[in-house]
Amino acid sequence: MIKTSSGVTLPKGFKAAGFACGIKKSGKKDLALIFSQVPALSFGLFTKNKVKAAPLIITARHLANNRAQAIVANSGNANCYTGKTGISDAEKMAYLTAKAMGIKPSDCLVASTGIIAKPMPMDKIVPGIKHLCLKVSKKGGIDAAKAIMTTDKVVKQASVSFKAGTKKVSIGAIAKGAGMIFPQLEAFSKHATMLCFITTDADIEFPALKESLSSAVNESFNRISVDACMSTNDMVLILANGQAGNKKIKLNSKEFNLFKNSLIDICKALAKKIVIDAEGATKFIEIKIKGARSVKLAKEAGFAVANSALFKTAIFGENRNVGRIISALGAIGISLDEHKTKIKLSSLEKKNIVLEVGLGQGKYSSVVYTCDLSPEYVKINAGYS
Amino acid sequence: MIKTSSGVTLPKGFKAAGFACGIKKSGKKDLALIFSQVPALSFGLFTKNKVKAAPLIITARHLANNRAQAIVANSGNANCYTGKTGISDAEKMAYLTAKAMGIKPSDCLVASTGIIAKPMPMDKIVPGIKHLCLKVSKKGGIDAAKAIMTTDKVVKQASVSFKAGTKKVSIGAIAKGAGMIFPQLEAFSKHATMLCFITTDADIEFPALKESLSSAVNESFNRISVDACMSTNDMVLILANGQAGNKKIKLNSKEFNLFKNSLIDICKALAKKIVIDAEGATKFIEIKIKGARSVKLAKEAGFAVANSALFKTAIFGENRNVGRIISALGAIGISLDEHKTKIKLSSLEKKNIVLEVGLGQGKYSSVVYTCDLSPEYVKINAGYS
Repeated sequence: MIKTSSGVTLPKGFKAAGFACGIKKSGKKDLALIFSQVPALSFGLFTKNKVKAAPLIITARHLANNRAQAIVANSGNANCYTGKTGISDAEKMAYLTAKAMGIKPSDCLVASTGIIAKPMPMDKIVPGIKHLCLKVSKKGGIDAAKAIMTTDKVVKQASVSFKAGTKKVSIGAIAKGAGMIFPQLEAFSKHATMLCFITTDADIEFPALKESLSSAVNESFNRISVDACMSTNDMVLILANGQAGNKKIKLNSKEFNLFKNSLIDICKALAKKIVIDAEGATKFIEIKIKGARSVKLAKEAGFAVANSALFKTAIFGENRNVGRIISALGAIGISLDEHKTKIKLSSLEKKNIVLEVGLGQGKYSSVVYTCDLSPEYVKINAGYS
Repeated sequence: MIKTSSGVTLPKGFKAAGFACGIKKSGKKDLALIFSQVPALSFGLFTKNKVKAAPLIITARHLANNRAQAIVANSGNANCYTGKTGISDAEKMAYLTAKAMGIKPSDCLVASTGIIAKPMPMDKIVPGIKHLCLKVSKKGGIDAAKAIMTTDKVVKQASVSFKAGTKKVSIGAIAKGAGMIFPQLEAFSKHATMLCFITTDADIEFPALKESLSSAVNESFNRISVDACMSTNDMVLILANGQAGNKKIKLNSKEFNLFKNSLIDICKALAKKIVIDAEGATKFIEIKIKGARSVKLAKEAGFAVANSALFKTAIFGENRNVGRIISALGAIGISLDEHKTKIKLSSLEKKNIVLEVGLGQGKYSSVVYTCDLSPEYVKINAGYS
């Protein structure tokens, strides 16, 4: 059972904080910290975008030993396309956090989200990190969740607990994202603006952690698109600190399946929250493609429709225009047979829309999630800078 | 020198007509005819979309002998995804036109644009074609241009004349298109909603005609995108009736180059008109990519930026957001070196915007044309059906 009342600090041994250091002119929180009392097993997935922000490069480097103890993140500036200065700024963020928390700099991961190609305001971030580290607490999870928001309207956190043997294991997470959302994450690689930080007190083997996160991301964040725009800063990070005291979870055990399924639930819940809270969105759309020749084709077909401006505007207008679904599928090279293709579109007057397309060409299926395209999306992004 | 005061009826031996038969509820013209007094050499290019409308299938069939004498076209209904009935409706349109004009049905080409997946209102089209054929005249070019419009706000026609030896040769054309514009045309293939019909009185060999049209389309319609949505009905057709009496134009002759360059000019003028008149557009954007590793990569890079909703909304908002250009390029797998990449964006306060990106990776370049994304585009497409 997914709960949204708690996030990254539900698992044992994790604390967090959020602070407004002044990167955001609005005065809202813009620095986040997640901290584990002991070094944690760690793994991360990063955007496929070839232009990767500086924090992704540093984080990938610090993840080389699969170990981390803290995540420091900022919103308001992506630290992307910022050259060598950007790299040293990201390094400095890790160094200052590590120093304040008494850990190794290589155990601190860094993430950023916001404007691309602007220098980081280090004059605000340097003193900000000191204040941030002083504020770390068990209650700070919600502040960390707020501090990574950009155009998000709602805080995104989720947590779940389950029994592994006799021990209670918990997973908590926070995420952000509302625009420039078409995360296609892979293990290393680096760019985006969808961030998700996951904590767990599970004691788990690295292959099991890696496999669980990869599956969960493929079932969730890699299936959403708001605007087909892939970011330079997207990342999903997990820290597993073993504080639950459970018997170590191994690949393909019963506990592994429990852990993996819980992680899938958490990631799906947060991915859907991103789509629901997307810039200007008035509808949540689930697109199910069935009868495809392969899973890859089914997913591509789903995104062809999800990323069609004409389909999205039709849904905004509650305009039942099946032709735009057909032309979007044909545009990516799918031949449709009028006698075999089945298109089912639920009532457009509701907030949740389900589109089912049966291609009648094979046995594979896939699901992707998107939202409508409204004048509000245009206004938000015409003004944002 | 391109003129916009005349179109398809400028070349000798061509007449045209436009008529309102009632497909459009607005009562505007919805049936167009272009007619050559003698059979003409003909060639066509069609959308790459795998879902192809019925008229494209019939037109491709009728073009098999590279000969045509008439084009009948309707707006308001795409006759796409309409099964066998759609095919026989398109055949019937050719048959009725041919009968009324006293030509062979296989010499009549058919085109449609409008809503997809709706049956053709043949009860209106059948009597409509009879009226249409009665109206054919030298002055009817502008009526034909009006009759193919859908969400277009302005009529699109162009013509040019040049000397081939001692004879004056003319080329005329009409086009339509404002939304679902990302034509990627090829020789056969079939789908879109960008239509262009070209007439010429030139006497020209088939290979020279084919090569000229292919080059012209690649330099024009295949370089524009309004909304990244590839239609099921796009086509470009040319009829060359030889009535200028010039010495037959052969491939790679001086006259061939004159003819080809004139055709490129005509097609570029019309392609740009489509982008300028695009649904909701307030800006015309020329994107020049230089220093790419291949022409193909340069064009892909141009379209990656042109098709980015975040780039387009930023231009609408006159918001100089270079990060959105960078992330769009990275998203298609282009690595950028901050020290080599040069991005130049002209003043955003003007109607015509020029973006130049020097990748610094090779010697190839390409140009594509697009427009901004405004709330008006969303409103038009939320309502259109």
